[in-house]
Amino acid sequence: MTSTLYAAYRHPEDPEAFDRHYAETHAPLGLALPGLRSFTGTHPGPGPDGAAPAYYFVAALAFDDDAAMNAALSGPEGAAAVADLANFAGAGVDLMTGSTTSYL
Amino acid sequence: MTSTLYAAYRHPEDPEAFDRHYAETHAPLGLALPGLRSFTGTHPGPGPDGAAPAYYFVAALAFDDDAAMNAALSGPEGAAAVADLANFAGAGVDLMTGSTTSYL
Repeated sequence: MTSTLYAAYRHPEDPEAFDRHYAETHAPLGLALPGLRSFTGTHPGPGPDGAAPAYYFVAALAFDDDAAMNAALSGPEGAAAVADLANFAGAGVDLMTGSTTSYL
Repeated sequence: MTSTLYAAYRHPEDPEAFDRHYAETHAPLGLALPGLRSFTGTHPGPGPDGAAPAYYFVAALAFDDDAAMNAALSGPEGAAAVADLANFAGAGVDLMTGSTTSYL
């Protein structure tokens, strides 16, 4: 069982500025986290009814287990990544961490 | 670039009944989707401040691309999985689909 950090970002006022900051600054900070096993980002599209998705962007960062994830997030690299949220995620971000079951 | 379906479930009234239905009924319906490449589920824990997480459970289903994902969701297996939501996700579920970038 791995462990996952989800960062679900609310719709920003300036999506282009958000994407630029994420690609140039925040993703590199995420990549610096020790023990990172996978790191993906998804921009959800509109729902089948054309409604805006609940979030603008969902990042998923996977680690071997809770101990590795918690060590990464509580270390200096984690602090730097969290501190950077103030620079681009003013619309809000829901951070969620937990153990992950693979069904397939 | 793969494509991902996120299903983010709000906190149910009866978490045990939710988990049982998910494991016994809904996960098998998800596993029946053609072209499924990975399928994980995460129960987020409380935040660092002890606050309840935004969602009770986050499922992530990955496909090779948008065409494969859309075909799976619009086919009979997708319809069966969506129809089953009414049986256990009354508290609400945010479904989000999009193309996924891998940073690592």
